[in-house]
Amino acid sequence: MSAPDPSADATWQLERGSQLMPRFGPDGLIAAIAQHHETREVLMLAWMNAEALQRTLETGQAHYWSRSRGSLWLKGESSGQIQTVRELRIDCDQDAVLLSVDVGGDGGCCHVGFHACFYRAVAGPDGSLVQVMDGPPA
Amino acid sequence: MSAPDPSADATWQLERGSQLMPRFGPDGLIAAIAQHHETREVLMLAWMNAEALQRTLETGQAHYWSRSRGSLWLKGESSGQIQTVRELRIDCDQDAVLLSVDVGGDGGCCHVGFHACFYRAVAGPDGSLVQVMDGPPA
Repeated sequence: MSAPDPSADATWQLERGSQLMPRFGPDGLIAAIAQHHETREVLMLAWMNAEALQRTLETGQAHYWSRSRGSLWLKGESSGQIQTVRELRIDCDQDAVLLSVDVGGDGGCCHVGFHACFYRAVAGPDGSLVQVMDGPPA
Repeated sequence: MSAPDPSADATWQLERGSQLMPRFGPDGLIAAIAQHHETREVLMLAWMNAEALQRTLETGQAHYWSRSRGSLWLKGESSGQIQTVRELRIDCDQDAVLLSVDVGGDGGCCHVGFHACFYRAVAGPDGSLVQVMDGPPA
């Protein structure tokens, strides 16, 4: 008798396999983290549907699904803040992707005017927030 | 007439306000990115419900909601890989949190045995994956 082949197992394929098998949620979306390639700053969290992921892989430019607009979105198409993908990783259970990106235009990514979306930190258990990044006047 | 007060606007409060107003999804969850405080490596993406977020803020240790187990989860409770939260940030529209953490135990976080969950990168548009991190034998 030969030993069981671990690669026949679905969990093994998901966690250790060498083929992308993205697990989109019930809404057809997968979470996508954009991280700056040089500084390693986490710029934003957005969402991709299958088409956004495919276009990202084909073009090397980050495409997302805008939940608010209900449409495919080439990041930076109007702002110039194109995200050129240097590396795209998938996590263990293939329900999240991590993009390592260079950013075009003015180097920003956030519609509020900060260079990244995570510009506020929680200051205490009461949930008060402090701004931790330079940005536009309030 | 006085100028309109921008802080009276709900979007202004969400984006520029100084109070945490997390927008949990229809499933009651918010996406949470854990990033290593020193190396800035993105360790994992997980989910929090309101209780997990509150306990995280109160205790300074990352709590998540396990979607697979359907239960609250103190990360590292069994493995020792406790995530001590150095900073917790919220994004512009308050539907994602970013935790800057130190990691206890052996310093890892992934159940597969890698020190982080994003151990595979997409090698091309065909979706082939390559392992980019040392880890347990396949």
